[in-house]
Amino acid sequence: MITEYTHTYCLTAAQCNAQREVSPATLVQQIIDVATEHADILNIGFKRMSENNTLWVLSRVAYELKRYPRMLEQYTVTTWIEGYNKLFSDRNFVIRDSMGNTIGYARTVWMAIDKDTRRPADLSSVADPSATRPDLECNMARPGKIRFPKDHNKPSCYTFGASDIDFNRHVTSRRYIELVIDQLPLDIYDRYILTRFEIAYSHESLCGERVTVTSGTDPTSGALVSAIDGDGDIQKCLTRAWFVNRADGSSTEASMFLN
Amino acid sequence: MITEYTHTYCLTAAQCNAQREVSPATLVQQIIDVATEHADILNIGFKRMSENNTLWVLSRVAYELKRYPRMLEQYTVTTWIEGYNKLFSDRNFVIRDSMGNTIGYARTVWMAIDKDTRRPADLSSVADPSATRPDLECNMARPGKIRFPKDHNKPSCYTFGASDIDFNRHVTSRRYIELVIDQLPLDIYDRYILTRFEIAYSHESLCGERVTVTSGTDPTSGALVSAIDGDGDIQKCLTRAWFVNRADGSSTEASMFLN
Repeated sequence: MITEYTHTYCLTAAQCNAQREVSPATLVQQIIDVATEHADILNIGFKRMSENNTLWVLSRVAYELKRYPRMLEQYTVTTWIEGYNKLFSDRNFVIRDSMGNTIGYARTVWMAIDKDTRRPADLSSVADPSATRPDLECNMARPGKIRFPKDHNKPSCYTFGASDIDFNRHVTSRRYIELVIDQLPLDIYDRYILTRFEIAYSHESLCGERVTVTSGTDPTSGALVSAIDGDGDIQKCLTRAWFVNRADGSSTEASMFLN
Repeated sequence: MITEYTHTYCLTAAQCNAQREVSPATLVQQIIDVATEHADILNIGFKRMSENNTLWVLSRVAYELKRYPRMLEQYTVTTWIEGYNKLFSDRNFVIRDSMGNTIGYARTVWMAIDKDTRRPADLSSVADPSATRPDLECNMARPGKIRFPKDHNKPSCYTFGASDIDFNRHVTSRRYIELVIDQLPLDIYDRYILTRFEIAYSHESLCGERVTVTSGTDPTSGALVSAIDGDGDIQKCLTRAWFVNRADGSSTEASMFLN
């Protein structure tokens, strides 16, 4: 049984962001892709889940990187299942450069939902203890509960279009993350590296839905907290982002970035 | 000399659109990527152009497909240089399924510009006739001049964010195309296939720029014509899209789709 699965990537120029690095949205998409590939190999993918009329949905993603892979640099994303409980599956990742040096880690939390009721499904029928690797190291803190701060910027609005929709007819994780990234001006990303990022998904979004994106600073950690909310204040997702100065590696309070 | 270059693709679920096909924006990005890879192999890529302080820029892309590659389907994009003149280089493409059957073609027109003056550069120093393949077939009409029709819908607005910017610090072709795609509701793409698409680039856009997107029907061809315009009516790009009914393959006037 392949309990540890690796995918090798190399970003073309056209796939990079303005800093000539993999973008946070692309990295999270790759994390999802690698998880999907490994689940298929273990026969707990989309097809198998369909037999029970269930579907994997992502509850949380968190990653922490020393640096982002650069344009045309070869890097690997390796994944394994840390463990299961009745409702959640923890799947971890390590990102390495082409020499095998670790440049970061990621943690994801998945749940299965019933396709019709959209209610959480019991994972007992797919949870195979022999497929888990609790022995492998994922050297980053688990994602914590994200609270939206009292002080925040003026919300910006966006309406999801056809291009934002995935094969399950919901808005992509990529678009959620891009909306959050776009809360800050480009030159912030030139000067600071988003060293740790967390996203907690609450509700799926559909094409045509209008959302607001709002950001503030977490008073405890100094991280940038952003919320995407739909009509009737239905929360779509919450994110938290920590920044480090590229020049001297010092941590930076997100309050500096917000007007 | 490798005068014909092929890249094999297979789209993951997360990379597909709502129709479980490659999206127009992704297809154009792949066309650009394959062109870049081939140019590098021929030593007329980014690096070589830099020595003359020049840069390749895309002037036009057009593609025509019988159908789009589907989720998890293997397909190839093959490219070759059709020819050069003093200012423009024509590079063509054929898209084939895994059995080698042609499912579509693409044509691109490239020019080189001076990095500082942004003025067109003479291609004589890089144009090597022995690298061209005018003998290969690209069985689709060349892109024509796109005129914006008098009648059009109400413009929608968008401000480019950090996520929309590429390694050259300009807005990506992907984002331009997504903005145009998002002019129509999702169910149109369920019922109709965008069988031919053309984009003509006029001006580069920067992060923070606000644009309007407007669409109308070309009275002659029945195609959907869309314009992205910046402040002071500076035209960023013009696109033209032809639709065919998925059920019976009949051509469809875009006027049906616009309010």
